[in-house]
Amino acid sequence: MNIKVLTLFPDMFTALDHSIVGRAQEDARIHLEYINFRDYSTNRHGRVDDSPYGGGAGMLLTPQPVFDAVAALPKANRRIIAMTPTGQRFDQTVAEEWARESELVFLCGHYEGFDQRIHDELVTDEVSLGDFVLTGGELAAMTMIDAVVRLLPDVLGKSASHEDDSFSTGLLEYPHYTRPADYNGLRVPDVLLSGNHAKIEQWRRQQALKRTLERRPDLLETADLSASDLKYLQSISGLSND
Amino acid sequence: MNIKVLTLFPDMFTALDHSIVGRAQEDARIHLEYINFRDYSTNRHGRVDDSPYGGGAGMLLTPQPVFDAVAALPKANRRIIAMTPTGQRFDQTVAEEWARESELVFLCGHYEGFDQRIHDELVTDEVSLGDFVLTGGELAAMTMIDAVVRLLPDVLGKSASHEDDSFSTGLLEYPHYTRPADYNGLRVPDVLLSGNHAKIEQWRRQQALKRTLERRPDLLETADLSASDLKYLQSISGLSND
Repeated sequence: MNIKVLTLFPDMFTALDHSIVGRAQEDARIHLEYINFRDYSTNRHGRVDDSPYGGGAGMLLTPQPVFDAVAALPKANRRIIAMTPTGQRFDQTVAEEWARESELVFLCGHYEGFDQRIHDELVTDEVSLGDFVLTGGELAAMTMIDAVVRLLPDVLGKSASHEDDSFSTGLLEYPHYTRPADYNGLRVPDVLLSGNHAKIEQWRRQQALKRTLERRPDLLETADLSASDLKYLQSISGLSND
Repeated sequence: MNIKVLTLFPDMFTALDHSIVGRAQEDARIHLEYINFRDYSTNRHGRVDDSPYGGGAGMLLTPQPVFDAVAALPKANRRIIAMTPTGQRFDQTVAEEWARESELVFLCGHYEGFDQRIHDELVTDEVSLGDFVLTGGELAAMTMIDAVVRLLPDVLGKSASHEDDSFSTGLLEYPHYTRPADYNGLRVPDVLLSGNHAKIEQWRRQQALKRTLERRPDLLETADLSASDLKYLQSISGLSND
């Protein structure tokens, strides 16, 4: 997958050189390229921002450098993604959709954001990381790249997995435990030490159901639930009404 | 504000040395400290992970290094925040609440995450950046830190503002335009060039209302709306039903 990032702060992206995304770059599963659109400014001082029409605080990114930087990209069947709190919510479904693309372009705003004409004319996907505001699109882009790249074939490898991830099953993930079985009196649930795989599977499913019911009941509306899932949910929500 | 980050990948955090958060560090408005909990491992190979009880792919972070790293922190009235997709959703309200604290501690999971006893015993706030899965908590921590730090007094300064941010008003933000007034035939809306501040304010409010109605109608349920806001919303939702 080719990933291009248009940003005023390419040096911020070193977080992607570590761990799993760093290894995906070394193994050439992804090719990451950073383009500083300041380099496309025709202003003799390299300016890329200006104050907003109609007044107000903050500086906006002007059309010319961004239009020219996008025009210089090779033509392709590509998505140009802008991160903005006013966009569609990024989630695991969006990550899975993007993971099937061969090329993604991320356009990172900064300061008060882009002149609206950039959104209207250049951007194919306006996405929001969540209902909060950041100083720029860079951290949002890195976060989305991380979520997408880990879904690419062979990136997590045998040492990890995304099959049981929260949201992949439609439920929150069950709790995990590792050694020691007793840490200063804090014990791992007995069932996980039992070696009884059917019982372990049932416990994990029930823990995922219970946690989702407690923390994110909205997810149960769209999750794929069996008859025994529903029976279990009924039994615990009955208890919690006591 | 003191911010401590417990992570296996302190080098990933260089993104916070740039732009607004970088300046907040230089101006001593925040003090950021990174603690690698691998340094607390009593395993002679410095191991911090082990395979899950009950089987399954991926490696979990074991209790000992994290419990010992947290025990070594100075005692204080502090939040210990863990980023997990199963947590409470991070949003602007959470960012504003955290911005009033004097100290925050971020505990970054990696791989398949933490042994559950770490969550149960050490963590005060389990938060999720959104309904997606990352390779670790580092990018989520950086994103949350960015959202919080820009709200601290004097961090954005006179050159910017968070008063009109999306969510600060309960609505999505209105569109912004800057020079030139005509960019290759793409024109700035006339009202913004009119110099009539009352009309500009009205246009911006209506654009914010329209965009919120189109993209995030859920926000209108809790937004603080005037009689004229409601009248405008009624007029445009009437039109869109034609």
